[in-house]
Amino acid sequence: MKLVLVYSGGLDSTVLLHHLLAEGHEIHCLGIDYGQRHRRELVSGQAICERLGVEYRVVDLTAIRPLLKGSSLTDSVSLPEGAYNIENMKSTVVPNRNMILLSLAIAWAASLRADAVAYAAHAGDHPLYPDCRPEFAQAMDRAAALCDWNPVRLLRPFIDMGKRDIVRRGAELGVPFELTWSCYQGGQRHCGRCGTCRERRDAFARAGISDPTEYQSPD
Amino acid sequence: MKLVLVYSGGLDSTVLLHHLLAEGHEIHCLGIDYGQRHRRELVSGQAICERLGVEYRVVDLTAIRPLLKGSSLTDSVSLPEGAYNIENMKSTVVPNRNMILLSLAIAWAASLRADAVAYAAHAGDHPLYPDCRPEFAQAMDRAAALCDWNPVRLLRPFIDMGKRDIVRRGAELGVPFELTWSCYQGGQRHCGRCGTCRERRDAFARAGISDPTEYQSPD
Repeated sequence: MKLVLVYSGGLDSTVLLHHLLAEGHEIHCLGIDYGQRHRRELVSGQAICERLGVEYRVVDLTAIRPLLKGSSLTDSVSLPEGAYNIENMKSTVVPNRNMILLSLAIAWAASLRADAVAYAAHAGDHPLYPDCRPEFAQAMDRAAALCDWNPVRLLRPFIDMGKRDIVRRGAELGVPFELTWSCYQGGQRHCGRCGTCRERRDAFARAGISDPTEYQSPD
Repeated sequence: MKLVLVYSGGLDSTVLLHHLLAEGHEIHCLGIDYGQRHRRELVSGQAICERLGVEYRVVDLTAIRPLLKGSSLTDSVSLPEGAYNIENMKSTVVPNRNMILLSLAIAWAASLRADAVAYAAHAGDHPLYPDCRPEFAQAMDRAAALCDWNPVRLLRPFIDMGKRDIVRRGAELGVPFELTWSCYQGGQRHCGRCGTCRERRDAFARAGISDPTEYQSPD
């Protein structure tokens, strides 16, 4: 199939990219710069796509920042440290982010006459993000099937896998984990303390796979 | 209610703006510059909102043009003249335009804690635009209700009205029709020949309302 992949340069979407290539699909990667603090991930995405010889198109959506007030990922609100939990991480919700990303990916898929848009939703997605709910994904599936005369499908190949399983699948595929980026702080190295860094470390530990990430905070 | 209105500066959305203000709602207007040939409409929108003292925020989405290949509204493909019909106007379809516009309006509504997004879909919307189908609107309604913890409603107050009825409603409300912009060509005056100009003229004629538009081509 010909697919558009919503691709951030993070752990999950990088494993998904390798997984889809291994299945023989033609992939076009879409990255979005929406003014996220951790736009460092886009540089990782670029490096990985170059290595694989896959198209990576980054769209500059920073003009929409004035519409997205109040998220610590895009505003000057300070980013919470420590484990993911509702109280701690609510500020990282970017209003309607998934619908915006998917609408652009679907538009590109329609232009390319691609069959589907794939993205790395997984079983561990946090219930604090309303647009990670399965009912939301179902509504978007339906909208994507109707928005163009050539229906676009939405694929979530990792929806039944947790992050541990994703790391294992990545190891099988020889994914260069050291090139991927997770940290929400967006420094030179992974901070090791924010919610996504903790999850990343934890996923490698539980998968029994050696973690090549250099963390600023060693534990 | 507090509402975000998808607002182009065109005839339909300008009548809707006046209609919603007359109903007593607080309105925040969103215009999108997606590189449309007729971005002249955004200037009209600005002038009308200033006159009404309503916020009009235009977001520059021209960065997404590389994703939207093949539409005569955004590309260098020449624009068809003459009446709307499938063969003639297929080139004016912008891939997934409505989902993109709605996703941004919904994001802004969620940020503002607004109740709903309104847009000027109407009974005369052309069946050649797949994302004007009612099933598509229903899927988007559902997605909007789920994308945030505070559900956002989608309102289409004119969905049962044709363009003739919209002109009549506008006349009742004292809408300054001469400030609105419809023409897809985006010149200094309405061309009078493209599909939207023909529809505009026809709507005034059928409504029995004098048309204040200066057309380049008098008939």
